[in-house]
Amino acid sequence: MELLLPHPSNSTPLTVLGFLDRAASVYGDCPSILHTANTVHTWSETHNRCLRIASALTSSSIGIKQGQVVSVVGPNVPSVYELQFAVPMSGAILNNINPRLDAHALSVLLRHSESRLVFVDHRSISLVLEAVSLFTQHEKPHLVLLDDDQENDSSSASDFLDTYEEIMERGNSRFKWIRPQTEWQPMVLNYTSGTTSSPKGVVLSHRAIFMLTVSSLLDWSVPNRPVYLWTLPMFHANGWGYTWGTAAVGATNICTRRVDAPTIYNLIDKHNVTHMCAAPMVLNMLINYPLSTPLKNPVQVMTSGAPPPATIISRAESLGFNVSHSYGLTETSGPVVSCAWKPKWDHLDPLERARLKSRQGVRTLGFTEVDVRDRKTGKSVKHDGVSVGEIVFRGSSVMLGYYKDPQGTAACMREDGWFYSGDIGVIHKDGYLEIKDRSKDVIICGGENISSAEIETVLYTNPVVKEAAVVAKPDKMWGETPCAFVSLKCDNNGDGSVPVTEREIREFCKTKLPKYMVPRKVIFQEELPKTSTGKIQKFLLRQMAKSLS
Amino acid sequence: MELLLPHPSNSTPLTVLGFLDRAASVYGDCPSILHTANTVHTWSETHNRCLRIASALTSSSIGIKQGQVVSVVGPNVPSVYELQFAVPMSGAILNNINPRLDAHALSVLLRHSESRLVFVDHRSISLVLEAVSLFTQHEKPHLVLLDDDQENDSSSASDFLDTYEEIMERGNSRFKWIRPQTEWQPMVLNYTSGTTSSPKGVVLSHRAIFMLTVSSLLDWSVPNRPVYLWTLPMFHANGWGYTWGTAAVGATNICTRRVDAPTIYNLIDKHNVTHMCAAPMVLNMLINYPLSTPLKNPVQVMTSGAPPPATIISRAESLGFNVSHSYGLTETSGPVVSCAWKPKWDHLDPLERARLKSRQGVRTLGFTEVDVRDRKTGKSVKHDGVSVGEIVFRGSSVMLGYYKDPQGTAACMREDGWFYSGDIGVIHKDGYLEIKDRSKDVIICGGENISSAEIETVLYTNPVVKEAAVVAKPDKMWGETPCAFVSLKCDNNGDGSVPVTEREIREFCKTKLPKYMVPRKVIFQEELPKTSTGKIQKFLLRQMAKSLS
Repeated sequence: MELLLPHPSNSTPLTVLGFLDRAASVYGDCPSILHTANTVHTWSETHNRCLRIASALTSSSIGIKQGQVVSVVGPNVPSVYELQFAVPMSGAILNNINPRLDAHALSVLLRHSESRLVFVDHRSISLVLEAVSLFTQHEKPHLVLLDDDQENDSSSASDFLDTYEEIMERGNSRFKWIRPQTEWQPMVLNYTSGTTSSPKGVVLSHRAIFMLTVSSLLDWSVPNRPVYLWTLPMFHANGWGYTWGTAAVGATNICTRRVDAPTIYNLIDKHNVTHMCAAPMVLNMLINYPLSTPLKNPVQVMTSGAPPPATIISRAESLGFNVSHSYGLTETSGPVVSCAWKPKWDHLDPLERARLKSRQGVRTLGFTEVDVRDRKTGKSVKHDGVSVGEIVFRGSSVMLGYYKDPQGTAACMREDGWFYSGDIGVIHKDGYLEIKDRSKDVIICGGENISSAEIETVLYTNPVVKEAAVVAKPDKMWGETPCAFVSLKCDNNGDGSVPVTEREIREFCKTKLPKYMVPRKVIFQEELPKTSTGKIQKFLLRQMAKSLS
Repeated sequence: MELLLPHPSNSTPLTVLGFLDRAASVYGDCPSILHTANTVHTWSETHNRCLRIASALTSSSIGIKQGQVVSVVGPNVPSVYELQFAVPMSGAILNNINPRLDAHALSVLLRHSESRLVFVDHRSISLVLEAVSLFTQHEKPHLVLLDDDQENDSSSASDFLDTYEEIMERGNSRFKWIRPQTEWQPMVLNYTSGTTSSPKGVVLSHRAIFMLTVSSLLDWSVPNRPVYLWTLPMFHANGWGYTWGTAAVGATNICTRRVDAPTIYNLIDKHNVTHMCAAPMVLNMLINYPLSTPLKNPVQVMTSGAPPPATIISRAESLGFNVSHSYGLTETSGPVVSCAWKPKWDHLDPLERARLKSRQGVRTLGFTEVDVRDRKTGKSVKHDGVSVGEIVFRGSSVMLGYYKDPQGTAACMREDGWFYSGDIGVIHKDGYLEIKDRSKDVIICGGENISSAEIETVLYTNPVVKEAAVVAKPDKMWGETPCAFVSLKCDNNGDGSVPVTEREIREFCKTKLPKYMVPRKVIFQEELPKTSTGKIQKFLLRQMAKSLS
């Protein structure tokens, strides 16, 4: 048996890029992307357009070489979707950047990634020009303007920059896309949303992306020809793999620049949306919008990116959303754990179902192992739902490492063969993982570890609370104490007065939490500060809490 | 980027074996296997039982070592299902053997595989004892009796052999199953159904099996918790991967020793079967059975193993079966090409839909490439639906090679990086593959290549034809001429007379085929000879045709 070694016919590298050829064969005349009344593509056109962009990138006039980084700064528009295929099809490494970063942060990422070319949405052009203004001529990346829609407010920029459609014109749709030589070749460079520390560039291989995408489709039982609404940004861990996953199943991708409740409900209704991904905060936005008529058909929603409070899940389900919940990190290519539904939970009451569904769950089918370990000893904790430790991962979707950061890489990809996530959790008796907190979000009060997420879950059960976040407030006596930031549902009194007091919130918590976990301080805000992907920016709240001490 | 090499946390070997741990977590108290009134297991029990058998195999009393071969000779019963996990979980290589082989053929395979242990169904025990009777003491494998059901007719054998339940009793359910060290490690040894030549032992790696299983689930859009009926033998390319695929989705496996139309319809009705796999001949059996009431609910049927005539598909669909069609070989771990349905075909009439569905189709998502090439030059033929060549494959599910047969391996796994299948086909303009014939089934008449499958397809459109197979009959003048073997639907005249004549069949073909393709000879048979997996045994018909010349 040992004489039977891999042969070129069975060791072809795994890659998602071939999904597009297949979609063109099977779904060639079906819609691939809808965006505004003017942009309607078929899978055959999308295939053709991606090949033309890929060929243009490798042409002598642009001259992108294999392994060089190409960046994309834009919202969920068709060109940004196409670039998820076109950039790696040219042999380059795809780097999506959040267009809401400021010019300084953007310049740091562009310099760190050594990006050779930046595709930039017309609304972000002045931002990008500012970001690269201090670069030397040698450092300056080539800029290409994404001119997706009519409302182009930067015609001046298009006078001196290549536009996306222009370089597409010069491309060749018979281009033979560049297959990776091995599946370990880097395909994607994603910067984590951490905004305080130096940039962490997560490098993901073709194999990692393939396994993430395929496992996600299986895990969510995505059928062929779904109608997929893009509310989750494509730049956010590549839309959890659905930038490529929708090609695998021949979906209709519904693009939108605006992500607000009326737009989302309108698109769901207009296009009979069947599937969407959404951070818990987007779900929260949807359930707090006064919906005049219920959803015509159930919409499958995958939520991830932050632990969803059970009350948000249960309210969303009552509106006709069928919520699934998964968990992962940029470093694991996206979600690799999901709260696989148990048939025996079917008959529980809605809130209990939502509570169970808010647990993170079990590994997806293509992932190897998830465990909770003591960070110091590296030993597994008991699977009793109580013993706390660091969540660790092992499986094909784990990153290759951080770009240009061997120390950072070695700190989380440890010699014991596990990737250490920095998240704190427990494993229940049935093997289901539950996050207790990000390790940096744990509040240490008088030597006792307090999970900020647990307090937040209680706050969300209060009917007047719209959003809640709990952080550590430095305290001379206790070291740290919990401090809650809360925004409220619309002002009941109609006179601008707050419908509850700090004391009432604390009393409410006392009925549901041990005394040491009750927030010592409650601060009301109209809206909590959030990243563009809907995560509450706890580092800002932590600064505020600190300034109060 | 080139500094980022694989790390133990991201390079864990792909394997389907972990599906069982996950099924026990998620579907622990859901039924896993039903068989007769006495055998009802849950996924938690199946998990437990597999671990106990795996541990018993590695125990000092049995002493199976990693990489040794363990064989299974049995029908579709729960223990045979369990062994698909338990044997590789022990580190051994799983070798399923068709229990309908004769003692001589069986002894050839057991000697060739150097099997150390044979799990044998009580109905096959005398066969296996005969097969190993001439083995030396050193060659003789350990035998373990599968005593699945009550109707045990070999109590004498159980007196001197270990039984399955006995060794399970001695096993440890806390056994840590043996993960492959690399995903290229052999997991399965499957002998091809070719019965004339020397045995061809197809060796499949953990990676090949994983990719086959995952791609099949995705391709068929199998949801969670289906009810899966086992009509396809588990020993036939491991039931096209569904031996492991059903654990991935927490299915209820319905086992049955009997595969006849009344049993199948009865089980579908009794258990609300949602999914089944069936060779075209099994479908043919189902559509020729007088069904008193139509199916209550649609049943998803995957057919593969031989090209299905369009008339069989269309008739099966009219009865409430929703037929999908896929294509592959033992050497590709199972089906890797499928006739992915195009939405634009929805509105065609049923027979046209069936005709399109009878094409083999496009590669599944996890497979890399399928092409049709000239065997001599190795060049791709035109994708015009007419240019004929040999079907070639490239992807993770291709075998490692034939066991102990470097010449045979090199002949099909060629230096140009493709696996040559021996099947003859065309690729249509839309990229869909269509088989024209097995290369050995092509009839060469006056220098003209005639596809036996094309003539068979025409014969199946004749309403009195039940089964049809066309082979070459040696001919002094033409070299070979087509000779048809036909069985007819129940005798219409009721007096034993044949409802059509040879001349009528030939006239019928003349209206639908070019003259040179019309069978020169038509032979009526009550039933065509078939393998236990429902494939018509053309080599027997070829012998008969030869004896007629």
